[in-house]
Amino acid sequence: MEEKTVLLTIAYDGTNFSGWQRQPGKPTIQGELENVLSLLCRAPIKLEGTSRTDAGVHALGQRASFSGNFGIPVEKIPLAASHLLMGPLEGSLAPNFRGSHGAIQIIKAEQVQKGFHARFNAKGKTYYYEIETRESPDIFRRNYCYNVSYPLDLQAMAEAGQVLVGTHDFKSFQASGGEEKETTVRTIHSLKVEKTQNGLRVQVSGDGFLYNMVRIIVGTLVDIGRGKIRSQVMEEILLAKDRQRAGHTAPPQGLYLAEVHY
Amino acid sequence: MEEKTVLLTIAYDGTNFSGWQRQPGKPTIQGELENVLSLLCRAPIKLEGTSRTDAGVHALGQRASFSGNFGIPVEKIPLAASHLLMGPLEGSLAPNFRGSHGAIQIIKAEQVQKGFHARFNAKGKTYYYEIETRESPDIFRRNYCYNVSYPLDLQAMAEAGQVLVGTHDFKSFQASGGEEKETTVRTIHSLKVEKTQNGLRVQVSGDGFLYNMVRIIVGTLVDIGRGKIRSQVMEEILLAKDRQRAGHTAPPQGLYLAEVHY
Repeated sequence: MEEKTVLLTIAYDGTNFSGWQRQPGKPTIQGELENVLSLLCRAPIKLEGTSRTDAGVHALGQRASFSGNFGIPVEKIPLAASHLLMGPLEGSLAPNFRGSHGAIQIIKAEQVQKGFHARFNAKGKTYYYEIETRESPDIFRRNYCYNVSYPLDLQAMAEAGQVLVGTHDFKSFQASGGEEKETTVRTIHSLKVEKTQNGLRVQVSGDGFLYNMVRIIVGTLVDIGRGKIRSQVMEEILLAKDRQRAGHTAPPQGLYLAEVHY
Repeated sequence: MEEKTVLLTIAYDGTNFSGWQRQPGKPTIQGELENVLSLLCRAPIKLEGTSRTDAGVHALGQRASFSGNFGIPVEKIPLAASHLLMGPLEGSLAPNFRGSHGAIQIIKAEQVQKGFHARFNAKGKTYYYEIETRESPDIFRRNYCYNVSYPLDLQAMAEAGQVLVGTHDFKSFQASGGEEKETTVRTIHSLKVEKTQNGLRVQVSGDGFLYNMVRIIVGTLVDIGRGKIRSQVMEEILLAKDRQRAGHTAPPQGLYLAEVHY
């Protein structure tokens, strides 16, 4: 058998996981998927994910690549994996509760050229952030959005968001504790704030994002939307290159990695 | 302090619980609530719930009553309980994961007359059952609806549902394994099938329901909706008084105890 390289498109409900990245003794998306793929491929599989999403963060279109010599036809991987991911699996660290079953779904598996890498080849990413503005939070949505329970000024948020579009030093929107990056300059291609049934959705596309960057941008937009920060101040925050100047970090459960661009 | 009797209105996400009823060594809604209320009231509290919902079944308006001599003002119970229910609690059997935090919410607490009992005083109940007919299931809804992934004939389902309205012997719609009831005659006040964004909702009100009765009714309606059973056969099924004649039992995660009538 010749070595094949495979690119996966993955959706997951991050609620009961300690994030994407494999960690000893903790249930992670990467860990669960590597277990399942190793079973299907009858060899230890190491996945390279595009984005190391945090605990509680969700994905509609995460990507991950792996290489190996294996017999299973690439196109059969999604369905075969879905059966294994529906119930308790040997070696799984996820709690054996309904909430963890079926929480990860391989949407697509495609063979790609040798050397392809889900992260290094990515040209950009799109994230959604879901905000609920109902006064009494919907408990069935508590792990799938950020409930702010006060009205937000969509217009002010959309205006402030436009200040961030383009190529800028986003140091003010980087959390401490992440990897040291060589540069904090990134390009945001678009940032939209849209009305939804129970609140707002912030949709942001860019070539790359610093640690917690989307969540700090959203937290700052929420502070602007409730009038705690004036929308005109967004430019000062950006130019300050100081995390202290930006708003709060929005919680993980509203964040969805929507799409990876190649 | 005089003894007070309290009636609670409770919502919960049943995903990570082994149902309402307290069971040794298992996370249950009743068990979690009794722990929390015993802390707040500084005395062991025993709750009487209206409906013993199964594992994975949800509630928008479950009711439960309890009596005791305690200092906390009745109207302060919902907020005080919500803080305790948001995170890990000593004595809790729920898995310490995001998915279990905040899964139970006391919506209202009201003082009622001595001797009031949430179950014996109830005159009836309303249940919702959520069905998703999307071909590819939404993983974020997997624990909150029944995905059937094929189109359903709403008209046929609604017609067949009307046959069940009224006072009938519902033995055909009773699962084995439940408590032996003295009579299997019940009254269904209304049964509606409505279109929703991603599928259908069955809404059923009645004076009482046999074990798994709503789920067997919905399973039979789904079998009718996909053409597996003709809608005209519903009357024969009802008259047969034989569980074998009815359709499949719809899974628990689509079922919501919506309201209790007093």
